[in-house]
Amino acid sequence: MARVRDALEAGKFKRVGKAFRQMHPAKAAGLLEALPPAERSSVWEMLDAERAGKILVHLHDEVRARLALEMEEDELVAAARKLDLDDLVDLIQALPSGSGRQLLQAMDVRKRQQLLSMLSYPEDSAGGLMNTDHISVRADVRVGSVLRYLRLLEDLPDHTDKVMVVDRKNRYQGVLRLSRLVTSTPDSVVSDVMDADFQPFDVMLPSQDVARRFEDLDILSAAVVDENQLLIGRITVDDVMDIIREDSERAMMSMAGLDDEADMFAPVLTSSRRRAVWLGINLVTAFLAAWVIGLFQGTLEQLVALAVLMPIVASMGGIAGSQTLTLVVRGMALGQVEGGNARLLLSKEMGIACLNGVLWALVVAGLAVAWFGNWQLGAVIAAAILLNLLCAAVSGLAIPLLLRRFGVDPALAGSVILTTVTDVVGFLAFLGLATLFLL
Amino acid sequence: MARVRDALEAGKFKRVGKAFRQMHPAKAAGLLEALPPAERSSVWEMLDAERAGKILVHLHDEVRARLALEMEEDELVAAARKLDLDDLVDLIQALPSGSGRQLLQAMDVRKRQQLLSMLSYPEDSAGGLMNTDHISVRADVRVGSVLRYLRLLEDLPDHTDKVMVVDRKNRYQGVLRLSRLVTSTPDSVVSDVMDADFQPFDVMLPSQDVARRFEDLDILSAAVVDENQLLIGRITVDDVMDIIREDSERAMMSMAGLDDEADMFAPVLTSSRRRAVWLGINLVTAFLAAWVIGLFQGTLEQLVALAVLMPIVASMGGIAGSQTLTLVVRGMALGQVEGGNARLLLSKEMGIACLNGVLWALVVAGLAVAWFGNWQLGAVIAAAILLNLLCAAVSGLAIPLLLRRFGVDPALAGSVILTTVTDVVGFLAFLGLATLFLL
Repeated sequence: MARVRDALEAGKFKRVGKAFRQMHPAKAAGLLEALPPAERSSVWEMLDAERAGKILVHLHDEVRARLALEMEEDELVAAARKLDLDDLVDLIQALPSGSGRQLLQAMDVRKRQQLLSMLSYPEDSAGGLMNTDHISVRADVRVGSVLRYLRLLEDLPDHTDKVMVVDRKNRYQGVLRLSRLVTSTPDSVVSDVMDADFQPFDVMLPSQDVARRFEDLDILSAAVVDENQLLIGRITVDDVMDIIREDSERAMMSMAGLDDEADMFAPVLTSSRRRAVWLGINLVTAFLAAWVIGLFQGTLEQLVALAVLMPIVASMGGIAGSQTLTLVVRGMALGQVEGGNARLLLSKEMGIACLNGVLWALVVAGLAVAWFGNWQLGAVIAAAILLNLLCAAVSGLAIPLLLRRFGVDPALAGSVILTTVTDVVGFLAFLGLATLFLL
Repeated sequence: MARVRDALEAGKFKRVGKAFRQMHPAKAAGLLEALPPAERSSVWEMLDAERAGKILVHLHDEVRARLALEMEEDELVAAARKLDLDDLVDLIQALPSGSGRQLLQAMDVRKRQQLLSMLSYPEDSAGGLMNTDHISVRADVRVGSVLRYLRLLEDLPDHTDKVMVVDRKNRYQGVLRLSRLVTSTPDSVVSDVMDADFQPFDVMLPSQDVARRFEDLDILSAAVVDENQLLIGRITVDDVMDIIREDSERAMMSMAGLDDEADMFAPVLTSSRRRAVWLGINLVTAFLAAWVIGLFQGTLEQLVALAVLMPIVASMGGIAGSQTLTLVVRGMALGQVEGGNARLLLSKEMGIACLNGVLWALVVAGLAVAWFGNWQLGAVIAAAILLNLLCAAVSGLAIPLLLRRFGVDPALAGSVILTTVTDVVGFLAFLGLATLFLL
């Protein structure tokens, strides 16, 4: 990358263009994303339509839309023509609706109709993920005929590990794996060597479930059928890998209130606006905690050591709670936390909270006594920490379960709510107990 | 799951055993992990060796080791015999070394030698991921002969989308895709239809790079060669999907100081000990912040409103810093943050920090003035927030870059260090400025 940037600064545009043309499109996309906007645009202008199309596929949505909008319309159309249908659908969805419609208009009638039918499915469903380049054969023909048919096609679509078997009305019957095809004798009949147990995916199946089934069944491609069991497309494992990667990125980014499509070099104003929302939400919770502290101003005036120690109580609760929360959110994502075992999980987490609560309560109490020479203060902080850790265990389990019941993503909202709870309980317990026993 | 637990409680063991035998192994594994230890063991005892072996593959390492240790040695050996070599290697690595060695001894000579050679590669390298069930053909034979050879094998290994092409000395020459094989005429020669550009993976390639290359190149399987270009195995995409999923789980769990192999129902003592470490590390940073506050006890005694407002300053800095940190950690994982563009990223992040700093400084100042009716207090908190947000932007970028230079995983240690910095700077700026201007 350093070399590309050096060459750009030195004005050696030809060399950069050549380097980008020789690179694998995925690598070129990564490199483009790592360049600041000005340099990104000047590299982008150097690429021909075919290259640009291939690179577009590998870019994050936000960067992709931004670069596509920089292209002339005819360039964009030329680049788009080189794309697989599912990638083209992604591109159209990432563009502002006006540009998307223009792109759609520029396609020939047949392709446009296929695109329109694919665009009619939700982006995060089997229909939104599928491609329509599957090969289908009939169940009553012989393997020899299938091989002759495939030879006529000369080249099979990427990631073809099986052909689909359908009846006369295009209803799904099963799949015929290539690995089975090549090991069968030419005179065997497809219906004898096909895999009829292989379940097709419903077109409306959510993409999370698609990914989960690909992983669990270890499959490379799957048929997609509509509600009448008609074969309408196939999903390949490369799209599933993208889902898994994007999901994990999204989970990580959303925990910091960031947009998952984020372009590292998005304009400052755009980024600021997005992040401001998250800061604002957190400010509300911070003021809630401040309000609780404000209730005890009289106590704090009399014993300023409380102000010194109170962040420790809140912070220990926050850490312990986020451990439980993370475990539960992961378990929920794997479908392993239900009403049935939640109570058992609660008793386990309470057990851990008791052990760690007692341990760290004693440690902190010891340090507090050593620091301020006040035995009662040590007792109060120990009790507050134990209380807060128990409460953190309950909230760490209850918050994601409740959020799920209300249909909110627990990975996103969970940690804000949890921190609010552990802050409020921590300050309340510590300052409240101090008011009762120390004054 | 609720049904399984009900049936277990009602003592209907036969029905549970049957249900587990009919389920897909991956699903059965998920269900087993969701059961508390006692019920898990009683279900496990009901399964025969073949089923148990298939389920073992899909379990997380910790649960796998625990269940394998519950089995009699001969049962375990019987279950292990049904496993693919790469899964068997995983199992042996997850077991305590004594049991692993016993298992190894129980295999026949040929299998044991293959296992030993696979175990000699690091777990997280191409060698640790590969399987040795590839099919190889010579470059100078005809497609018709290849087809006849494959028909003799009757069934190809799972996930065979290509056969490997080697020379007489088993040196790697290229790959022949099945999709190409079925579209070629029987009398064409392998060397004409094979894909000679397809790069094999070096046996020592780290698994992260393996996954990245699978994703970038959209491939389903790849050849693994040793340092002499001899073909020694192949990696399939299902193993790569596992890596991607495990990486994302590990990143999420490690941010809360949890072990990535964690069994949701691990014994309370084991879990407590693991989590205590993380709580202890955080306690050190909490005491550091407390020590900073302690420096200003005199100030706090005179103006208790400072104690009420100070958590707000620290918390806003922490949130803003973690946004920058998350963006940078993701960029580093994608290989997009280097010395070259770090400076540009810094100026962008500083820009965002200025905008959001000024915005929220004004909001918080307004609220503080409304609450405490003290104009100077408002000015001090505004300045402290702006300062802390700027400092958070610098730290959010600098900390992961520094950690990487010292070879520490920035996802793990980054957020602890960042929070320490934003807490310390937040308290120091707010209480320091208050001491200078408000007393």
